[in-house]
Amino acid sequence: MQLNLHQTHHEIADFEGLFKYLTTTFQQENSAGLHLFPELFLTGYPLQDLALKKTFIDDYMAFLVDLSNWSERQFKSLSPVSVLMGGLHYEFDSLGYPAQIENVIFLMEPGKKLKPIYTKQLLPNYDLYEEKKYFTSGHQSGILTLQGKNIGLLICEDMWFSHLHDSDPVELLKEEMQQKNLSCDLIINLSASPFHLGKIESRINRALEISQFLKAPFAYINRVGAEDEILFDGHSFLVDGNEVVASARGFKSQVLSLPLPAFRPPEALNKRAYHTDTNSWSTLFSTRLSSDTKELLPLGDDSCELVLRALMLGVTDYAKKNNLKKFSIALSGGMDSSLVLTILKLIQKDYPIEIEAIFMPGFFSNSLSFDLSYDLCRNLGIKLTTLPIKFIHSTIRTAYKDNFGKELQGLADENIQSRLRGALIYLRSNDQGSAVLNTSNKSEIAVGYSTIYGDSVGALSVLGDLFKTEVFELARYINRVQGQLIPEDIITRPPSAELRENQEDSQSLPPYSRLDPILEALLSSRFTPSDLIKKGHDKVEVMKVYQLLSNSEYKRRQFCPIIKVKSKSFGFGHRVPISKKSL
Amino acid sequence: MQLNLHQTHHEIADFEGLFKYLTTTFQQENSAGLHLFPELFLTGYPLQDLALKKTFIDDYMAFLVDLSNWSERQFKSLSPVSVLMGGLHYEFDSLGYPAQIENVIFLMEPGKKLKPIYTKQLLPNYDLYEEKKYFTSGHQSGILTLQGKNIGLLICEDMWFSHLHDSDPVELLKEEMQQKNLSCDLIINLSASPFHLGKIESRINRALEISQFLKAPFAYINRVGAEDEILFDGHSFLVDGNEVVASARGFKSQVLSLPLPAFRPPEALNKRAYHTDTNSWSTLFSTRLSSDTKELLPLGDDSCELVLRALMLGVTDYAKKNNLKKFSIALSGGMDSSLVLTILKLIQKDYPIEIEAIFMPGFFSNSLSFDLSYDLCRNLGIKLTTLPIKFIHSTIRTAYKDNFGKELQGLADENIQSRLRGALIYLRSNDQGSAVLNTSNKSEIAVGYSTIYGDSVGALSVLGDLFKTEVFELARYINRVQGQLIPEDIITRPPSAELRENQEDSQSLPPYSRLDPILEALLSSRFTPSDLIKKGHDKVEVMKVYQLLSNSEYKRRQFCPIIKVKSKSFGFGHRVPISKKSL
Repeated sequence: MQLNLHQTHHEIADFEGLFKYLTTTFQQENSAGLHLFPELFLTGYPLQDLALKKTFIDDYMAFLVDLSNWSERQFKSLSPVSVLMGGLHYEFDSLGYPAQIENVIFLMEPGKKLKPIYTKQLLPNYDLYEEKKYFTSGHQSGILTLQGKNIGLLICEDMWFSHLHDSDPVELLKEEMQQKNLSCDLIINLSASPFHLGKIESRINRALEISQFLKAPFAYINRVGAEDEILFDGHSFLVDGNEVVASARGFKSQVLSLPLPAFRPPEALNKRAYHTDTNSWSTLFSTRLSSDTKELLPLGDDSCELVLRALMLGVTDYAKKNNLKKFSIALSGGMDSSLVLTILKLIQKDYPIEIEAIFMPGFFSNSLSFDLSYDLCRNLGIKLTTLPIKFIHSTIRTAYKDNFGKELQGLADENIQSRLRGALIYLRSNDQGSAVLNTSNKSEIAVGYSTIYGDSVGALSVLGDLFKTEVFELARYINRVQGQLIPEDIITRPPSAELRENQEDSQSLPPYSRLDPILEALLSSRFTPSDLIKKGHDKVEVMKVYQLLSNSEYKRRQFCPIIKVKSKSFGFGHRVPISKKSL
Repeated sequence: MQLNLHQTHHEIADFEGLFKYLTTTFQQENSAGLHLFPELFLTGYPLQDLALKKTFIDDYMAFLVDLSNWSERQFKSLSPVSVLMGGLHYEFDSLGYPAQIENVIFLMEPGKKLKPIYTKQLLPNYDLYEEKKYFTSGHQSGILTLQGKNIGLLICEDMWFSHLHDSDPVELLKEEMQQKNLSCDLIINLSASPFHLGKIESRINRALEISQFLKAPFAYINRVGAEDEILFDGHSFLVDGNEVVASARGFKSQVLSLPLPAFRPPEALNKRAYHTDTNSWSTLFSTRLSSDTKELLPLGDDSCELVLRALMLGVTDYAKKNNLKKFSIALSGGMDSSLVLTILKLIQKDYPIEIEAIFMPGFFSNSLSFDLSYDLCRNLGIKLTTLPIKFIHSTIRTAYKDNFGKELQGLADENIQSRLRGALIYLRSNDQGSAVLNTSNKSEIAVGYSTIYGDSVGALSVLGDLFKTEVFELARYINRVQGQLIPEDIITRPPSAELRENQEDSQSLPPYSRLDPILEALLSSRFTPSDLIKKGHDKVEVMKVYQLLSNSEYKRRQFCPIIKVKSKSFGFGHRVPISKKSL
């Protein structure tokens, strides 16, 4: 039997596009075999409240009817074809409102109607997942015999049993196969699995465990695409029990076609037992730290490349799906905005966008900041416009003094510069119909070292899941593999907001090499401040960072979506009350 | 047996405060009887990720040990005392991470250790609720015999069976009472039930149904307090089967003490059957619309009073919990900011805050706007400062022309005024250490009729769950009951953003009397645009509103918390992807 893993890339609720894609795909002669599509391929994912919305439901149900009719009447093939696709199965109450929604696999075969054949059993409901909010779980294990082959069915989380779930779909599969005296020829997992660093290896390792446990090859099909902050990376694969026998590329759509391989028992060395002792919140407790908690583990080249491609897909998809064709970037001469501009330039090679950079010097801007911005833009071939804010800043100082009878100074005078720049970059955005990308990094967002409505503005945060030290590492990586795009001085000069005379970040914060590991430890929920102090971190520093982190929740609440590349990110998966007793 | 319903008001994670409150309460002589405290009284609610955070857990576990020791060693009473309180029960894995968290009732009695005796069975996981993300549900019904009385135990959602849940705790209670041949003397429900209009009546009606079904009085204990956007209103009560025999006030803490009444069968007229056919998403599908969908139902005086008190508690608690003592309000001479300022003034009667108003006229500000702002501030006794933006706006226009070589005009020139005002009110906030309240209404937020980082700024939205027509109704109500605080012309003049010559909202939007019902219908997820057109709404208008609603998700994503007063609100309970195919 020929296997076809369709690693697809479609927009949420693009029913017209899906209909066209499917009917085109199966008009081809060479479509014999088994065709596998991702989880919720027929709807898109994550849908959130769209799943409950009548407009969405009406359109989806009409699309299902059309597709089912097409399959029954126009889907023809000389050799056996079976198509398995993820979708939603609705039941309605007497008033016509959705009463029950299941995350299912549909079977489509020539001359037959579409049929839901399996319901997802394990609904992830931690971190950014909230499937129990919308879906009802299945309790039947999925075994299907197609073209003479016994296939075990799983949907995404079904392969990730953890101790908060009641039963293990993989165990259930094994039991039921044994009861029915069937041998398993293939396990499939239709997934919509968000990307984060380390995820690709975990999926393969788990697939090998399950493959060995059920003694059958394991096909993993993942979707591609960025949905606001969440990103699906593809990386679909097939393991035969011993090793990966085929894998699709990352971050791009692809169809992987190959004959169903035989199960191959593991060689002694890579043999691993199927384990079921996972803590449901393990993502939360994992850290990228050295064992003494003193250092953030470096990304390394492989992860830098993955992160770069993820960020590029994140921005590109956001632009495509929201019809953005121009970008205006506020360049400061610092690392973060320089890296965002560079990433936009790399995107431009594959996707047509217009990019402009705007440098907005104020009273405290270092002339080096302009020079470096100029050099960067020259390297990238991007037009740089200067829009000085000094005079506007002066008129505000005067207006404040005239009307409130006091000199503007301190934090207020610092922040107004940042907010002026925020207002001016959006002025340009309004005038040009361009989008503004946020340039904050995870360290800043964590400690609230940013001005709300100032440097924190933007439609989408590109670097918000990377600590400052990782931003530097990524910049160095890009310079190494793409040519020296970013002037070296941007990477080596001390970070500064340039909002007062001789300001440097290190006057307000610990050096990033110490700040970032403390943040990673605290964000993992694994460590209390006292734990870290016991491990030898400086007490004053830890307590300060902890308080900053705890007290800046109100800023994060109003932050834009952050492209997620880590297991634990700010954004939808981070939910902490603003109002709370200090802990 | 004496019943004591403790309608408490504590901050999240205020373990010290709780310990003091409990140990003080039970040092009193007259504490005999049964003491009932709200759901999650011992931790606060909602905790979100705090429930998984080691710092929180360590502190909470230490508090539990202290309280348990106190109960065992120092809690003394001559007459029988039993205390039932909501809290969390943790189990940990081998690494010390939380493996399972249950939302439980603890029993505390003199000379004994604290003991978890019942686990919440139904975990709400719709709208803003996400208890399945954190908690494991119980499967045992709760029957407890205390001081010779058989008590049926429920926690909040346990009384609200709906068709997505597997079993009904109320039915279970009945079955088990019958099996054990026990008569039920009292049903208690410890709750943390967020406020919205209509909720108070629903709770009482449901309690009467259950009381009649189990033939026992029903005590409902709710907490008080605002947590960012969610608000707990108290309104605890006791029904005897026939009617409400005692009720606590709304929005304030109170202890309700009375002897356990006998069950009184319902009089024929108010008899109602216990119903179990609720759709889990019923909140979502409910509307406050006339049956032809053409009109929003008016709030009426009772709801206006409830909403006013809710908003006052919402702001007061946010201020207290975040240590805010001053407020700076940007006054436009329009309805929304005038009402926010008036509500702040009403708050000031009970809670000491400083309030200042700032009027920021631009080129297009009507002189009437100043006059009305002046009159309002005189009525309220609040200092008004004028900070003109014309000159600053001019310097920006000049800078734009000088540096980009084109005149600033259209939307860009409009929005910069709004953003300048946003930046300037935060300038004042930074200089004064004052908080800024957002003044947007639900109609604006729905259609995106606001400037992001401009008039949409603020720490907390006061009116964001009220449609514009409801804002007017509330203003009229306040004028009626509090004296004519708000100048009549503010209520009657046509709404305008005053960002261009002779601008009025009605140039961009349908009149609010038509816009608001369309929005209420669409937000309920019950109606598609075509449903509304079939009901006689104007097609062009409906489609325009629908597109505006759908396309402004990106603005709402960066909006501040909105005090929730309706069953369906923007904010945490409204989750819609920004990127999606237009539906």
